[in-house]
Amino acid sequence: MPGSVQSIERAAAVLRLLAVAPDGLGVVDLGNALGLAKATVHGIVRTLEQVGFVTQDHAGGRYHLSTALARLGDSYLDVNELRGRAINWADSLASRSGEVVRVGRLISGKVTVVHHVFRPDDSDQDLDVGTTLPAHACALGKAVLAYDTTGAARPRKLEAFTTRTIVDPAKLAEALAAVRSSGWAGEFEEHTIELAGIAAPIRGLGGLVVGSVGLTGRIERICDSRGRFRPDLVTMVRSTAEAIGRDVQAVP
Amino acid sequence: MPGSVQSIERAAAVLRLLAVAPDGLGVVDLGNALGLAKATVHGIVRTLEQVGFVTQDHAGGRYHLSTALARLGDSYLDVNELRGRAINWADSLASRSGEVVRVGRLISGKVTVVHHVFRPDDSDQDLDVGTTLPAHACALGKAVLAYDTTGAARPRKLEAFTTRTIVDPAKLAEALAAVRSSGWAGEFEEHTIELAGIAAPIRGLGGLVVGSVGLTGRIERICDSRGRFRPDLVTMVRSTAEAIGRDVQAVP
Repeated sequence: MPGSVQSIERAAAVLRLLAVAPDGLGVVDLGNALGLAKATVHGIVRTLEQVGFVTQDHAGGRYHLSTALARLGDSYLDVNELRGRAINWADSLASRSGEVVRVGRLISGKVTVVHHVFRPDDSDQDLDVGTTLPAHACALGKAVLAYDTTGAARPRKLEAFTTRTIVDPAKLAEALAAVRSSGWAGEFEEHTIELAGIAAPIRGLGGLVVGSVGLTGRIERICDSRGRFRPDLVTMVRSTAEAIGRDVQAVP
Repeated sequence: MPGSVQSIERAAAVLRLLAVAPDGLGVVDLGNALGLAKATVHGIVRTLEQVGFVTQDHAGGRYHLSTALARLGDSYLDVNELRGRAINWADSLASRSGEVVRVGRLISGKVTVVHHVFRPDDSDQDLDVGTTLPAHACALGKAVLAYDTTGAARPRKLEAFTTRTIVDPAKLAEALAAVRSSGWAGEFEEHTIELAGIAAPIRGLGGLVVGSVGLTGRIERICDSRGRFRPDLVTMVRSTAEAIGRDVQAVP
């Protein structure tokens, strides 16, 4: 029923009980207090642990309220963790697509490249890790900007890098709506002449977008003869983003 | 699946987004960010509002993180609210049972009577509202003590009021386990000679026990000829507690 989500009510009740239990509480304590079966409570506290709201002590298995609850605005996944989850999947995408693969995260309004896999062709390439990209002008950026709610991330002035860069805020809003509706972002000479890119958002627990993964390459390899992004590459990028998302979600 | 509760993950994601949105966010913003349908987001934020974790501004309908999240240990339902929800149901229980009905709440280890309905027989009676009862020695108290997780509420020394008062902590723990398993508490001359009582817990959102409701009367009226609590009265008390609980849960 849309008006109420029982498991959220129960989770809130668990948090309230833990808030007044300086020594923490076990699954049995919580079940007794709330009149719930042990398995039900276990599902709730495990999820609360995964989202970082409670912690479990290793000794007694008792649950405690996490200090993260007081710092909800902090990101729940640090850059190194995102990178750690993404590495294998990004490597695989690079070898299957034959293109440069990058994993990005929106930091202070720009996309920071947190992982970079060279194009597997032994050509001279520079490592991009740590560099930032303009979010509005690349697929990696649009794939995260589309899900940003702070507004702070969207630059007031949209800088042009090529004649194709989106510099009109209304056009950018349209482009981001298209990303949300399709689930992926494309870039066609918007940042660099002759280069195109495809990227998709990486979703953590609850659907939170924690970054993006994408590939970049010469237009003739990324797009088909009619100038459309190659569907096989789009599928590869999207399934890579989903796979990373699953790994991100699996780890507390 | 026991390992993860999707709606809790989503609720956590909503809270994180609201935590970094000084102007609040609407249902559409949240749906866009998390890739969820509007109806799904609406169910989540409504529930979060009911449990007191978010508030909605009346102007724009935008949701904000509630300051209650920082004060999770505070009770989510104040005594006046509990009383307000309970009044009609308690009146009805008194008139159907013909007995004194009281609504109690555990405060600092004792049961405070927050509402009291006289026995409907025009006899001389004192108003109990505001008085406290020893939690271990009455049905009203045992019905809340059984679900208390703080431990703080359980008195170290169990005072005897009659020879039937439970003064052994192990026996009390047994009695409270029996309350949890049956869903109601009985009192047989444990507080006052010749009086018996029946009480049941009132559960708020998520199953949190926020108080209890019960009746008290002379043994021969509360118990049958074999000294057992009358099943019809037990049923009345329990359904009254459930009705109050539904009212408590229905109001944000």
